[in-house]
Amino acid sequence: MENFVFQNKTKIIFGAAAENQVGAEVAAFAKKALLHFGGGSVKKSGLYDRVAGSLKKAGVEFVELGGAQPNPRLSLVREGIELCRKNGIKFILAVGGGSAIDSAKAMAVGVPYGGDVWDFYSGKAVPAEALDVATVLTIPAAGSESSPSSVITNADGDLKRGLTCELLRPVFSILNPELTFTLPAYQTACGAADIMAHIMERYFTTTKCADFTDRLCEAALKTIIHNAPVCVKEPKNYDARAEVMWAGCVAHNDLLGTGRNQDWASHQIEHEISGIYDVAHGAGLAVVFPAWMKRVFRSNVNRFVQFASRVWNIEIDFHNQEKTALAGIAALENFFASIGLPTRLKDMDIGEDRLEEMADKCTGRGGAATIGGFTPLNRGDILEILKIAR
Amino acid sequence: MENFVFQNKTKIIFGAAAENQVGAEVAAFAKKALLHFGGGSVKKSGLYDRVAGSLKKAGVEFVELGGAQPNPRLSLVREGIELCRKNGIKFILAVGGGSAIDSAKAMAVGVPYGGDVWDFYSGKAVPAEALDVATVLTIPAAGSESSPSSVITNADGDLKRGLTCELLRPVFSILNPELTFTLPAYQTACGAADIMAHIMERYFTTTKCADFTDRLCEAALKTIIHNAPVCVKEPKNYDARAEVMWAGCVAHNDLLGTGRNQDWASHQIEHEISGIYDVAHGAGLAVVFPAWMKRVFRSNVNRFVQFASRVWNIEIDFHNQEKTALAGIAALENFFASIGLPTRLKDMDIGEDRLEEMADKCTGRGGAATIGGFTPLNRGDILEILKIAR
Repeated sequence: MENFVFQNKTKIIFGAAAENQVGAEVAAFAKKALLHFGGGSVKKSGLYDRVAGSLKKAGVEFVELGGAQPNPRLSLVREGIELCRKNGIKFILAVGGGSAIDSAKAMAVGVPYGGDVWDFYSGKAVPAEALDVATVLTIPAAGSESSPSSVITNADGDLKRGLTCELLRPVFSILNPELTFTLPAYQTACGAADIMAHIMERYFTTTKCADFTDRLCEAALKTIIHNAPVCVKEPKNYDARAEVMWAGCVAHNDLLGTGRNQDWASHQIEHEISGIYDVAHGAGLAVVFPAWMKRVFRSNVNRFVQFASRVWNIEIDFHNQEKTALAGIAALENFFASIGLPTRLKDMDIGEDRLEEMADKCTGRGGAATIGGFTPLNRGDILEILKIAR
Repeated sequence: MENFVFQNKTKIIFGAAAENQVGAEVAAFAKKALLHFGGGSVKKSGLYDRVAGSLKKAGVEFVELGGAQPNPRLSLVREGIELCRKNGIKFILAVGGGSAIDSAKAMAVGVPYGGDVWDFYSGKAVPAEALDVATVLTIPAAGSESSPSSVITNADGDLKRGLTCELLRPVFSILNPELTFTLPAYQTACGAADIMAHIMERYFTTTKCADFTDRLCEAALKTIIHNAPVCVKEPKNYDARAEVMWAGCVAHNDLLGTGRNQDWASHQIEHEISGIYDVAHGAGLAVVFPAWMKRVFRSNVNRFVQFASRVWNIEIDFHNQEKTALAGIAALENFFASIGLPTRLKDMDIGEDRLEEMADKCTGRGGAATIGGFTPLNRGDILEILKIAR
């Protein structure tokens, strides 16, 4: 096991009707907040009214900013930063999925910073302070509700870049599975793929002693495999929605990554895809991950056999371990397809004309750098993966 | 899944030589500390010198109090409280196992309290504030290094009582698996039993939807089953020690208990045993837990079949589920015996003369109350379990 430091301060308030506690929870931190959310669904569902009512009841004044969209935009982040500064706001409440939360996190580090917030995402600067962020989660997927990460898209260059920093962990997050009842089947499936990807990025490691975290990863994967199809078929199944919501949160708070190196190549490759084509991140991952696996599994067949056996209950072919490894990859791909996800770029109407550009961006323009902790991948390898994914 | 709130603020600093960071970590909170530890092993091993050196280097002044012993005593807690008050100390660093840590936690709530600290353990009062506590862990067992719990023994009446309160979570805990290399085989095994008991108290639930946490519990149990015997046989196996240490910490921070009711009858019964006989808590649990299982398994055979199948890989006998359930219980008992633990009271030289007294104490003198969330047990049931354990 590798040395590590782990601390997750986010207070999770989980359960039916939990959003009604939001006012009291915010009031413990601030008397004024920015209320940030996405499109109309939060208003249509009545969630906005309940949150606004709870804030008012607790005496919390708020300024609102809607409009967060999937692959959240830098332009809106800048707008939010100005709004906070103008109104002297020190607390941001994000109501929505990963987009609203990631956007709120970017604002939180941007407000006290003298330069441009993109500096943090381009790697030019490291945040020294941040406003407090809290969340009311409506989409189990990004895990941003208790993670130290945020991903923002800069339309200038179709760049989607991430920032990881302990300051970004929300102070509290409210998780009510009922709020996910209205999620369409496709978005539910995309969320499941995103959650599974967060686990698999950690599962595929070169660290040899990682028994406990391996088993935690397998537990989380099996929970999603078992419950996500139920959510797709029975959108109002509280229990299945609850399992996915809680597993999705734990999947990305980095407990499952403690003491091990991690991969993250598939996420980086997918960021180039959704940065250009604006597809759902989870859908992109459902396409990229199996392709990545097909390209890299020979670098550690045993690990893929473990994945096939423990996660998918595939009987090991002791005469042909590679066959077992491939059966595990096929099981993953079939699972994604079974819940209505694309498994090829063409399923998302993405052609082959910009594959080279994506491989370039992924490895820092010149193409000299490598990505991935499990198997270092250069520009050529990434292009190969994108071609497998065609 | 049941509604829940979960927050674990403890910062875990895990890895080889991690104790050398202790001075810097304490200095972030206080310039003066009480250094609390157990017997001579901390000094003999050189750990005391490294911790003291690190504190001095960081400019942290300290007053020391040794003498914490297994089933830590109220008398020493009172001594520590006086010492802190006299020296104006606001921070306690516990170096040792659960006993030193639980003792430090009791001092932490006792110092700012006007009344007698036992009030918190007897249920007469609830702590409103506490000093900060941090730990350098040397025994993976109690899980106190990131739990909100403390258990103290009051020699006046041989009473062993617990307190659970979020204020008791350590601000940081240093976990270096190397510090456990010198743990004797028996103590290592006792620790493993304690860890498994913490998981099983949560695993045996009446909550029907608990898929994710079930799987997390199974992951943690399998980690201990796989690695504890290695630690017993190869005390300096870093990897196995690391797995047990990390799993033992997560086992009791209550992540594994989120969203479900829990049992805790076996712990309460064991507290009466070690409160009187001063046996190792883990050894007492190895005796009580299988006896508890034999008494209660018929109230939910399916859950015990799941335990047998998923944790112990026992093939399910679909013609006789009770047989499968019993095979799981036998597997647990055999496992405890295989790592050198007692599985009967007589193995610990405990006779039958005080069984009634223990059953009385467990159910509040009069014997009218019941304990246990999985199956409520009255005085008669507890006596039956103690008799099964003879």
